[in-house]
Amino acid sequence: MRHFTSINDVGDVHDLVKRAITNKSDPPQQLAQQLFVALIFFNPSLRTRLSSEKACHLLGLTPYVLNAGQSWPIEFGEGAVMDGDKSEHIKEAGKVISQYADLIAIRAFPLLKDRDEDYDEPVIKGFMANTSSPVINLESATRHPLQGFADMITIEENKRREKPKVVLTWAPHPKALPQSVANSFAAWSLAMEYDVVITHPEGYELDPALTYGATIEYDPVKAYENADFVYAKNWSSYRSYGQILSQDSGFRVNREKFSVTNNAYFMHCLPVRRNVVVDDEIIDSQQSLVIQQANNRTFAMLTVLEQILRHMNI
Amino acid sequence: MRHFTSINDVGDVHDLVKRAITNKSDPPQQLAQQLFVALIFFNPSLRTRLSSEKACHLLGLTPYVLNAGQSWPIEFGEGAVMDGDKSEHIKEAGKVISQYADLIAIRAFPLLKDRDEDYDEPVIKGFMANTSSPVINLESATRHPLQGFADMITIEENKRREKPKVVLTWAPHPKALPQSVANSFAAWSLAMEYDVVITHPEGYELDPALTYGATIEYDPVKAYENADFVYAKNWSSYRSYGQILSQDSGFRVNREKFSVTNNAYFMHCLPVRRNVVVDDEIIDSQQSLVIQQANNRTFAMLTVLEQILRHMNI
Amino acid sequence: MRHFTSINDVGDVHDLVKRAITNKSDPPQQLAQQLFVALIFFNPSLRTRLSSEKACHLLGLTPYVLNAGQSWPIEFGEGAVMDGDKSEHIKEAGKVISQYADLIAIRAFPLLKDRDEDYDEPVIKGFMANTSSPVINLESATRHPLQGFADMITIEENKRREKPKVVLTWAPHPKALPQSVANSFAAWSLAMEYDVVITHPEGYELDPALTYGATIEYDPVKAYENADFVYAKNWSSYRSYGQILSQDSGFRVNREKFSVTNNAYFMHCLPVRRNVVVDDEIIDSQQSLVIQQANNRTFAMLTVLEQILRHMNI
Repeated sequence: MRHFTSINDVGDVHDLVKRAITNKSDPPQQLAQQLFVALIFFNPSLRTRLSSEKACHLLGLTPYVLNAGQSWPIEFGEGAVMDGDKSEHIKEAGKVISQYADLIAIRAFPLLKDRDEDYDEPVIKGFMANTSSPVINLESATRHPLQGFADMITIEENKRREKPKVVLTWAPHPKALPQSVANSFAAWSLAMEYDVVITHPEGYELDPALTYGATIEYDPVKAYENADFVYAKNWSSYRSYGQILSQDSGFRVNREKFSVTNNAYFMHCLPVRRNVVVDDEIIDSQQSLVIQQANNRTFAMLTVLEQILRHMNI
Repeated sequence: MRHFTSINDVGDVHDLVKRAITNKSDPPQQLAQQLFVALIFFNPSLRTRLSSEKACHLLGLTPYVLNAGQSWPIEFGEGAVMDGDKSEHIKEAGKVISQYADLIAIRAFPLLKDRDEDYDEPVIKGFMANTSSPVINLESATRHPLQGFADMITIEENKRREKPKVVLTWAPHPKALPQSVANSFAAWSLAMEYDVVITHPEGYELDPALTYGATIEYDPVKAYENADFVYAKNWSSYRSYGQILSQDSGFRVNREKFSVTNNAYFMHCLPVRRNVVVDDEIIDSQQSLVIQQANNRTFAMLTVLEQILRHMNI
Repeated sequence: MRHFTSINDVGDVHDLVKRAITNKSDPPQQLAQQLFVALIFFNPSLRTRLSSEKACHLLGLTPYVLNAGQSWPIEFGEGAVMDGDKSEHIKEAGKVISQYADLIAIRAFPLLKDRDEDYDEPVIKGFMANTSSPVINLESATRHPLQGFADMITIEENKRREKPKVVLTWAPHPKALPQSVANSFAAWSLAMEYDVVITHPEGYELDPALTYGATIEYDPVKAYENADFVYAKNWSSYRSYGQILSQDSGFRVNREKFSVTNNAYFMHCLPVRRNVVVDDEIIDSQQSLVIQQANNRTFAMLTVLEQILRHMNI
């Protein structure tokens, strides 16, 4: 694996998930000495930061945590006359970071204003075009592949039949959120060849290119029928880009809807708004996998790092 | 020691202080490999952060520094409907952090508005109730036990008689400060069986449960008589909770009052407002122990970590 | 080397640059165990932070990164009555940090309001006067010696004649910037005995004490004639202290002026405003050394740390 920016960078998804599960029970030796990983956060992070730092240390890599937020306004425009607020061009930023870091991992959320711009992934692509170091996506404008990977590890660890029924359900939320987690969950669970159903109010359809092969069901009760896993997540509209079209509490995950499932497990990437996205009695139940998902973030990152180091012949 | 949240978690205080003094001259071998400590700062820190990081490295532990400040608004309410500003519940926050960190250390200051709420220590208790990892108090709403511990090390290193007279004096300050340092200094010095005198203007009495056994003296000159150690600290009122009742400069530490002591040492936890809390000529004198106190913070933390690791059978 | 605060702390500049070039191809063994370096940033940093962290790790030193910015307002005044915004005096701050850190490295920019105050370097001097630890300048009010050092490494690696002609050119910029980089580049290139020409609009003369031996040329085209290296940098006026006197685009580095050079290399410390300071076609050309300069920051810092550790007999 040269980079890890989306599921398209993965050769065989099944093999990668198996490798992560092996790494979890039997962590690899420290592979590297004096190798540096820049963890660049244009947006704040808890789980991604700690799981990434831990994975680096477990492999003997040295992480730098850069909370780049406001302090590093980067210009991406070709030929820009930089007489405004942007103090550094991606052409320097990318190449400079790769002088200090052997691997570069980046978190950069979408602005949710211009769909074409967000889906073009200018930050990730800008770094990839201007560095010789491998690039790892720590959640970009439209993808969160480390979350998708960790979710697949969690499903594989808990599934009770070869091809489980996996339901991705939209849920209400007071803020307009990106589609990244939903996009990656859909893409990874389809690649794992699960029976994937996506349920949401009309107008919340995700990018059809990413959900091809999934069943779309507007009635959440029908969607939940016989489900093995229910994955809840809010996202803002892809069609009416970035907008909140509904706060329909009928999509909140609750016991009533869970009663038609196959004793389903509950999943969420966290942080979660309790009693808005999901009722306490579901997330506090034995069927909740949210903490296991968080733990598997470490082994997703560790396995990605391992595969990239292997490609670097380290 | 399972947790370290207050002096009540300590078995024998004398033994613990002796152990710290031994660790200072003869640091223990690195005890641990691949163990992680989350240092979570809801309030900014210099001494606590650096001494904690250093103690971790000296023991071979890997610290994560999380400046959680504004960026991680946690909900503590049971059954809360999270449709407001709080994005994560302590139920997830605590369990998630313990996926990445084998020990969790937390700094969280009081709001100084509701005494019952502050003295109930919701942040520390919230993490303890929702994690399987040991919890270390890096200064909570009402306690600063690592400071109290470091202060005892410093007194033991400098005392000239078995049972020294130790004076805790309130001092003026332009801002309303917590009672944590004063509370812990009182509790630890009483547990060390020193002769403890506390002096402050009327209305600044600390929680009587924490100062039981100490002499309260409203006249600072009388309090200083024959003192071996004078420990200065501002705190806001406990009775008129969180309020500034006095700026009485008669409590500023100066040479005149020091003249009635037993050639006392001066102590303060730092940072200190010079010429408001204490005159330059006292803090700059040979009798000032403030830098030694700061250095002993490292060995207090190192010894706490050592004892907790021992309890974990590491 | 006891401290590294300016070129005046360096014995033989030529030897130091040679040593850095050797260290780059053949890094020294990890010299130290359990030694700590405080990297204190009163101003934000990317290159300086990452190169410093990397150099520490390459030598086996443990860095602490302190983004001190707003959160640590330090009083420097002798005898100050600290009843205002400043919460800690440099007398404690310096001594406390040296309890936790064996070396102290500091970045503190000028206020650009009072020239005498800035050129007196109160922050660096304040720490040096109040700590027993060696002090390293990570860019102070008036100097950036690690940049000057890295620039000399870069010139030595690329020069095609023994005594190259080196042009330092002022360039326009929308903000008022310090003179530090220009001051250090002038001082270091003069110490390396290059043929140094400085060009800028009238009124932008640097401190004459630092540029003694350099040729001042107000016409950039004349300055560029036969140059081997053109180093661009904006600075605000030293005479009309801190002011922007000109935005003269005639000083922007472009192909036309480059045509009269000796096929010169282009240099800049970064970050750079493209098409304001320099045209894309120059910085994107094969003659641009800006990324190599950034990389050499690591080896400048590594060599400084090595020399200071040697002085400490480590």
